[in-house]
Amino acid sequence: MSQDRFTFAKALVKRAGVFAHEYYMRLDTLNIESKGHQDMVSEADRDTEALVRNAIAQAFPEDTIVGEEDGVNKGTSEYTWIIDPIDGTANFIASIPQWCVIIACVKNGEKHIGVIYDPCADELFAAEKGKGATINGTPMRVSASQSLANGSLGLGYNARGNKQSTKNAIDLLMDEGGIFFRNASGGLMLAYAASGRLIGYIEDHMLSWDCMAGLTLVEEAGGIVQEIDVADAVMNGCKVVATCPGVFDQVKALTDKSFI
Amino acid sequence: MSQDRFTFAKALVKRAGVFAHEYYMRLDTLNIESKGHQDMVSEADRDTEALVRNAIAQAFPEDTIVGEEDGVNKGTSEYTWIIDPIDGTANFIASIPQWCVIIACVKNGEKHIGVIYDPCADELFAAEKGKGATINGTPMRVSASQSLANGSLGLGYNARGNKQSTKNAIDLLMDEGGIFFRNASGGLMLAYAASGRLIGYIEDHMLSWDCMAGLTLVEEAGGIVQEIDVADAVMNGCKVVATCPGVFDQVKALTDKSFI
Repeated sequence: MSQDRFTFAKALVKRAGVFAHEYYMRLDTLNIESKGHQDMVSEADRDTEALVRNAIAQAFPEDTIVGEEDGVNKGTSEYTWIIDPIDGTANFIASIPQWCVIIACVKNGEKHIGVIYDPCADELFAAEKGKGATINGTPMRVSASQSLANGSLGLGYNARGNKQSTKNAIDLLMDEGGIFFRNASGGLMLAYAASGRLIGYIEDHMLSWDCMAGLTLVEEAGGIVQEIDVADAVMNGCKVVATCPGVFDQVKALTDKSFI
Repeated sequence: MSQDRFTFAKALVKRAGVFAHEYYMRLDTLNIESKGHQDMVSEADRDTEALVRNAIAQAFPEDTIVGEEDGVNKGTSEYTWIIDPIDGTANFIASIPQWCVIIACVKNGEKHIGVIYDPCADELFAAEKGKGATINGTPMRVSASQSLANGSLGLGYNARGNKQSTKNAIDLLMDEGGIFFRNASGGLMLAYAASGRLIGYIEDHMLSWDCMAGLTLVEEAGGIVQEIDVADAVMNGCKVVATCPGVFDQVKALTDKSFI
């Protein structure tokens, strides 16, 4: 009998984070290629993804694996693992301690496991469908905020995104008395939304390795996530609106107006 | 003969950071008052400022002290100390590890010392006029970027700021191919600009305890700071445009158009 996937995922994301952090500590010697602004790739990225892929392939050879750097390994089971070896690569390369390793697992087209590890702060955010969410093993909840004026909303933008959508969202949010937070790691901001540090997170388009674990975290921490077609999002990405219950309607209305 | 103010400042900001971090680790028990969105004050804030004030008053009883929480203690010497005990209070209270302790010293109306300590990352950014800038003792430089598309620009906004100015700046920055970063700690973002992690930092209005140390850091790290009347800024705050040399003209033009 194979081991428990959730226990496995928590240990693996932490191991991968510690591994990536060793590269982070000796940044000067990294051989950095430029894939363009906000989308740089490094040895650390590739090596960390390889570590995670190999571990999954060994433990669960029948599962499908999707990763940012190395595409799809098609399996035969009902499980699909989705990996972002380093989310917030621009921060990583700039030495800004705001990046994370993300592993999600989808089962039969539904969110199943989400784990995000921030090695700089040594914080592990973890959730399994129906079993709640934890930070470093302690249960966590989304914010109790009832208003955009009470707390900050995480906001994502990158070169793939729609510039006007992002401008619109910022304008509307500020008009309604809110304020955005953008630390350039969508995964970490979703984890912050799940732990109540932010009141939510929005981005007009995210790829599955950036968002699927975070969406699982937010739901299991008591938040609301705008419905997505998970199977389609795994391959093509999706719009992300994920907040605490008290501001969901307002934030959804805001994104409905802003995201074009 | 009194001790060296720069050596004193570096040790003090670190001591204050470790002190504040103890409160951060037991956030749940803090007695938090609300001064309104983004501007909360806590026991940690007051106690940390008291620690810093007392240390300065003891070591340099003739110096003037200005602090966020406790106003002005007028001295007789040519030195004025400016303290922000916790910059990024909203992050601090939300458990987001992006906040810092800031101490600046102005001499005869000129920037003299700037020290910023981030206890979560254990990073000390320090500069003394004419002697360069360091991070944890190692010399640091601003970014070599020549373009808004190469790197992120830190952006500040808070309840005192002008909403339209901030919207304008974001619009123009994105139109010119750039991207903003906002982690809700102006002091830390200025330190990131000084260490080359961000290409610069802008905010339409900052108070002296938020900006004076960071401006000193950016200048000593080889960056350019839009000229301010330091003596006036100590009491009334100022506009902040502080970048690496390669983007200064473009960012200044952008803020000239945006900040109303």
